[in-house]
Amino acid sequence: MPADTVVLATRNEGKLRELARILDTERLVGLDAFPDVPDVPETEATFEGNALLKARAIAAYTGLPAVADDSGLCVDALNGMPGVLSARWAGKHGDDQANLDLLLAQVADVPEARLGARFVCAAALVDPAGGEWVTTGEVAGRLIRERRGSGGFGYDPVFVPSGFQETTAEMTPEAKDAISHRGRAFRALAPYIQGKLT
Amino acid sequence: MPADTVVLATRNEGKLRELARILDTERLVGLDAFPDVPDVPETEATFEGNALLKARAIAAYTGLPAVADDSGLCVDALNGMPGVLSARWAGKHGDDQANLDLLLAQVADVPEARLGARFVCAAALVDPAGGEWVTTGEVAGRLIRERRGSGGFGYDPVFVPSGFQETTAEMTPEAKDAISHRGRAFRALAPYIQGKLT
Repeated sequence: MPADTVVLATRNEGKLRELARILDTERLVGLDAFPDVPDVPETEATFEGNALLKARAIAAYTGLPAVADDSGLCVDALNGMPGVLSARWAGKHGDDQANLDLLLAQVADVPEARLGARFVCAAALVDPAGGEWVTTGEVAGRLIRERRGSGGFGYDPVFVPSGFQETTAEMTPEAKDAISHRGRAFRALAPYIQGKLT
Repeated sequence: MPADTVVLATRNEGKLRELARILDTERLVGLDAFPDVPDVPETEATFEGNALLKARAIAAYTGLPAVADDSGLCVDALNGMPGVLSARWAGKHGDDQANLDLLLAQVADVPEARLGARFVCAAALVDPAGGEWVTTGEVAGRLIRERRGSGGFGYDPVFVPSGFQETTAEMTPEAKDAISHRGRAFRALAPYIQGKLT
């Protein structure tokens, strides 16, 4: 592994390609390059805390600069939850359909005025040689009560960003990248990552 | 119905007896005396708001002073939720087992330090002749990760009040009344209710 490689803490090919596109580089690898890396439970109370937790663990394990992110949906009527528990809201990690069904059932009697929501992402870079950077991105909007669109993942089918008519699941990947919480957090982190790649 | 009767907005015999015990009166009736009273959806963001909403609707419908309460469990790690959504946390109203299973799964990776929680109750009295009163009661404590005890209902089996070793589901009804959020809210409201009963 060349010394100027950066590890992204994901096994998701789509996430890896997205970040490579934002950074305009090929010198990124995912966790598939490190099959034995231990899982890091996301035990922090904030997105920033969890992103740092993961990036620190991967940097320590690989000896390479590591990038990790944590993101979620913060719903007004739920005091900002699912938040850091977005991926396991219905109890089991990563069951998008169950998470979405549960959220819609929970807000069934909530008036429109309190269906405001925002997607938040924290992205962290940790250099094992020293240095930690964290950036955040968010996109404000509102929930709708039934799914629309087949793009994206997670809560995208019920989230309409402010100033738009379509859900983030109805947008093209490029249009979503341009306004998304992940896109914003990673673009803010990009200059620091590029510093490690050159 | 005698004019000095007070209606309690519940169909639950246990709740009716509990309040009659606190008020030391028999001049309380439940909603079973008004089979056609319409259901009031709990659409407010606060316990106080929901208790008032229900008490106003029952007072308007029956023409009698009405008492209603709303209560729930506020968990630190969930930014104070399930809160007003406690009874429908798993999506369907009143499924205690599903609500409890979901809550335990959601906090599975949450460290002990953030398992603080409190039960909160708001109790409201609305007099159709004029006058509204709202009181609140709470009991602070912490969640445990598995059920203990068969008393109480709802989240009682996983809630240990501060200063106690047992869950509220392991307490006698009298011991629980003495410290419970509902007991506290109703005792604070009692003088106003007794004013209507004399």
